[in-house]
Amino acid sequence: MTPRAIFLVSAPDQPGLVARLSGFFFRLGLNIVDASNHSEPSTARFYMRLVVDLGALSSPKAQAELGGNATRKALEEAFASLVAELSGTWSVGYDDVKARVALLVTRDPACLYDLVLRHRNGELPCEIPVIISNHATLEPVAESFRIPFFALPVTADTKHQQERMVLELLERLHIDLVVLARYMQVLSEPFLEAAPPVINIHHGFLPAFQGAKPYHQAWERGVKLIGATAHYATKDLDQGPIIEQDVARVRHDVSPEQMVRVGRDVERVVLARAVTAHLERRVIVEGRRTMIL
Amino acid sequence: MTPRAIFLVSAPDQPGLVARLSGFFFRLGLNIVDASNHSEPSTARFYMRLVVDLGALSSPKAQAELGGNATRKALEEAFASLVAELSGTWSVGYDDVKARVALLVTRDPACLYDLVLRHRNGELPCEIPVIISNHATLEPVAESFRIPFFALPVTADTKHQQERMVLELLERLHIDLVVLARYMQVLSEPFLEAAPPVINIHHGFLPAFQGAKPYHQAWERGVKLIGATAHYATKDLDQGPIIEQDVARVRHDVSPEQMVRVGRDVERVVLARAVTAHLERRVIVEGRRTMIL
Amino acid sequence: MTPRAIFLVSAPDQPGLVARLSGFFFRLGLNIVDASNHSEPSTARFYMRLVVDLGALSSPKAQAELGGNATRKALEEAFASLVAELSGTWSVGYDDVKARVALLVTRDPACLYDLVLRHRNGELPCEIPVIISNHATLEPVAESFRIPFFALPVTADTKHQQERMVLELLERLHIDLVVLARYMQVLSEPFLEAAPPVINIHHGFLPAFQGAKPYHQAWERGVKLIGATAHYATKDLDQGPIIEQDVARVRHDVSPEQMVRVGRDVERVVLARAVTAHLERRVIVEGRRTMIL
Amino acid sequence: MTPRAIFLVSAPDQPGLVARLSGFFFRLGLNIVDASNHSEPSTARFYMRLVVDLGALSSPKAQAELGGNATRKALEEAFASLVAELSGTWSVGYDDVKARVALLVTRDPACLYDLVLRHRNGELPCEIPVIISNHATLEPVAESFRIPFFALPVTADTKHQQERMVLELLERLHIDLVVLARYMQVLSEPFLEAAPPVINIHHGFLPAFQGAKPYHQAWERGVKLIGATAHYATKDLDQGPIIEQDVARVRHDVSPEQMVRVGRDVERVVLARAVTAHLERRVIVEGRRTMIL
Repeated sequence: MTPRAIFLVSAPDQPGLVARLSGFFFRLGLNIVDASNHSEPSTARFYMRLVVDLGALSSPKAQAELGGNATRKALEEAFASLVAELSGTWSVGYDDVKARVALLVTRDPACLYDLVLRHRNGELPCEIPVIISNHATLEPVAESFRIPFFALPVTADTKHQQERMVLELLERLHIDLVVLARYMQVLSEPFLEAAPPVINIHHGFLPAFQGAKPYHQAWERGVKLIGATAHYATKDLDQGPIIEQDVARVRHDVSPEQMVRVGRDVERVVLARAVTAHLERRVIVEGRRTMIL
Repeated sequence: MTPRAIFLVSAPDQPGLVARLSGFFFRLGLNIVDASNHSEPSTARFYMRLVVDLGALSSPKAQAELGGNATRKALEEAFASLVAELSGTWSVGYDDVKARVALLVTRDPACLYDLVLRHRNGELPCEIPVIISNHATLEPVAESFRIPFFALPVTADTKHQQERMVLELLERLHIDLVVLARYMQVLSEPFLEAAPPVINIHHGFLPAFQGAKPYHQAWERGVKLIGATAHYATKDLDQGPIIEQDVARVRHDVSPEQMVRVGRDVERVVLARAVTAHLERRVIVEGRRTMIL
Repeated sequence: MTPRAIFLVSAPDQPGLVARLSGFFFRLGLNIVDASNHSEPSTARFYMRLVVDLGALSSPKAQAELGGNATRKALEEAFASLVAELSGTWSVGYDDVKARVALLVTRDPACLYDLVLRHRNGELPCEIPVIISNHATLEPVAESFRIPFFALPVTADTKHQQERMVLELLERLHIDLVVLARYMQVLSEPFLEAAPPVINIHHGFLPAFQGAKPYHQAWERGVKLIGATAHYATKDLDQGPIIEQDVARVRHDVSPEQMVRVGRDVERVVLARAVTAHLERRVIVEGRRTMIL
Repeated sequence: MTPRAIFLVSAPDQPGLVARLSGFFFRLGLNIVDASNHSEPSTARFYMRLVVDLGALSSPKAQAELGGNATRKALEEAFASLVAELSGTWSVGYDDVKARVALLVTRDPACLYDLVLRHRNGELPCEIPVIISNHATLEPVAESFRIPFFALPVTADTKHQQERMVLELLERLHIDLVVLARYMQVLSEPFLEAAPPVINIHHGFLPAFQGAKPYHQAWERGVKLIGATAHYATKDLDQGPIIEQDVARVRHDVSPEQMVRVGRDVERVVLARAVTAHLERRVIVEGRRTMIL
């Protein structure tokens, strides 16, 4: 297998975008393995995801096109010039450079086990170099998978300080993505600004049932379906761009506690799908909405 | 086929309820064809649905137990005495006495066609003696199915008067159930107090997206699933007890208009299921919740 | 709105396909509104759908590129040359040239009503110039929508002759797509070879429960979900490429007859989705599989 | 909490069954906490599940009714007499006597982890005293949860002998239920006759795709949904009574390998639901069908 690059582009819609973006790689002799794009009429924005085989990056053709230096950095610079002409924004990832993911947890092990097992199973293209918690409860789980575990307790008084310690850990370990796998703390705005992207799982069908005890709220309201929502964490709690949602049917005779159990199955799957979509670089955020390409 | 009665009972939970309620019919020699019950621990209430074969109602045994008069009225009085001892409430329906349902519509024919076709198909155990609208648009649809159609236009000034005309129609036609099959008017509290039960279809996944244009709200929020909710209409708009809900998955590239179309498919099915559950006497309302027995 | 062309291409996978196909339209000055492609590793085939705005087809640039004659025919010829170089196959449709769809029915009106209502509602981008049946039962439905209706009864002896009459009708009315909306006849191989594409709805979750009475088969087997499958009709009954499937949950206490009713709701939606996908030119057939682009 | 008994009854349908069965407990002064029943018209059989609070079993009233000896054994004998009068069959379980479940696995840890974590989480009302495998691969998983693990390798030649060793283990450990959590061996008919009930998870939507590599079969056939089926193991492979099924949607661009991953999520949930239903004594088998009460 030759390595692959995944480019994500967002630009004002204009004629010739697909041709110009795909032509860029054609001229370099690089094969586009997979591509999808979407033009959003309401905002006149264009979004594209391109998966490019880098096997021919060291060919004379690519070298010539890139001014004699057929490195990834040269490729990125050339692509940046093109996107600048289109007034767009872009990002890139490589499938041989695994994203480094930190899992933040509290006491509930369900999402943690689920993500770690999927990782071990080859479903999540990433490394998991650390699990961080505000409690020591899940240390044995981390140990059984030989993942370093940090317990950083937090109180109202120490919140600022604890968040700085978490940030330091994230930086020192070169973390690219933070996953809140049932981390029962609200993250501050400064933390979210300084941290890499953060994905949260909300155990409710947002935007209904925001806030605490969503399943109890759902039970009180007599809903017939309960859901889970994975979204990027933003300063407005439970208001971040939604990545994935799903539901499960419940009957009138379930208790709030059974709703929690049914919901837990939905949460795990929804969180795993959202993390996978992010790691495969399929998600473009635009305001409060996401495109899943 | 012999006729059947369907009893619904709600009572404070207490030992022996199933035995006493089923024993009542056993002593009369009436066979219980179907029964289900539920004890709600949070409220200590007991709910039961009993489907009883009335074939043996004219037997000497039943006659003797009912004091010599084996009529449905005598059966109801005897059952009422039993439930009064249990401090409960009850209702009864007979499968050879079809409920009379009025459909209220405005301009959108989707739910109207759906219900009328299901009715013709034998799926809805009811009669549909009237379609009432605030517009004349759907008159040809009503005519093609030979159902009497009344157009009662309404403005802010005539709302009170129009609602009284609708109420008069409902009374004169002995309507047992009103179905708002996309009737784009808010019904007043006095109307709802005077009318038979009213089932509404909300084109959104309540409690999210209450109010106007729910699909546009859902689109703005970037949700990945859209839903529909059938509920009993109450004075608090979109707050009535939920009978049925379902969802459909949408991708990032659907427009609000496409969401409306996808949603319409969900609405039709959800409304039909809710109306069927009501007509089969499966629904017990308790506060803001419903039990579907 | 300017008119749009939708191109579907299938070709052996090779470097530069996206760039060459999109570059073709770029050189003509035609904007690609929507594009998606897929490379199937197991077969090394490449599939692409391109939606192209034809607004600039009459521009000098397009005229020059097309050798002075900027017609749709010239565009098609130029595109054919390109795809021939790639050893591929292709087809095109225009959104201002509506496909003409014949509905074939027998006695069950559910799918017929559903498709006709969606059509009237603007959901199906086609014309429905004819409904053909082997029974007169649904004539009033056709009439209520003012669609010409032909009753062509069939027996074992007259099957060959009746199919020729149907074929003649399809040809005379320039039909592009035949939809079997619960047409309870097996079509012969010669008919299928001579006819335009035929979409069938199977009231079962293929490949299980092929043949007659699938819901009864499903009931006997005690399945917990029942499904419906829309597929292209081929000479091997119920073996054609699957376009769309869905399921609904059933409890142990449903009868085979109730399964039929539950299934009917699934069938309608699945058939409508399949017909829409075909009409939007999203379906590429490859052997027994379909790509939905 | 006082202990509870769960009775399952199956009998020929006849008048007064609900009254006689519930009356039995009423006379003893035992409260029926939950009850549901179903009369199957096609077979004229009656099925009932009764959950009975045993708190009053030691009361003088119960003692008198049970002939002076208010033990569980006396209760069972009295109930057996009643059901014999009805020509029925019955079974009972107690919520303070946890079923003992053996998990049989091979190399795939997904279902194993899932069940063990749910157990630890309080979702499965059982004990898991043993994990048995034909490979040593999953020993560390068993150890990390401190569950005894037996590796009993098997070849074509040693199959008979290995199955006897498994049977001996099941007997010695008083196992009530065997769960094949991806145990990749076909069990012989003598084994199944001698063993307690066996629940299997089939990674396909039965009855389609029986036999080996169901996801590859499904991929070849181009299905749009893949499923999983939990059923009781019988001598006819993949033909046993179905307890639970579910599906997940797949797109044309998933590979057979990705189908396996998507399917694994469905399998886990379906198996867990089936095991829970069995442990809660909700399942009655009747021929090839199951009733879930």
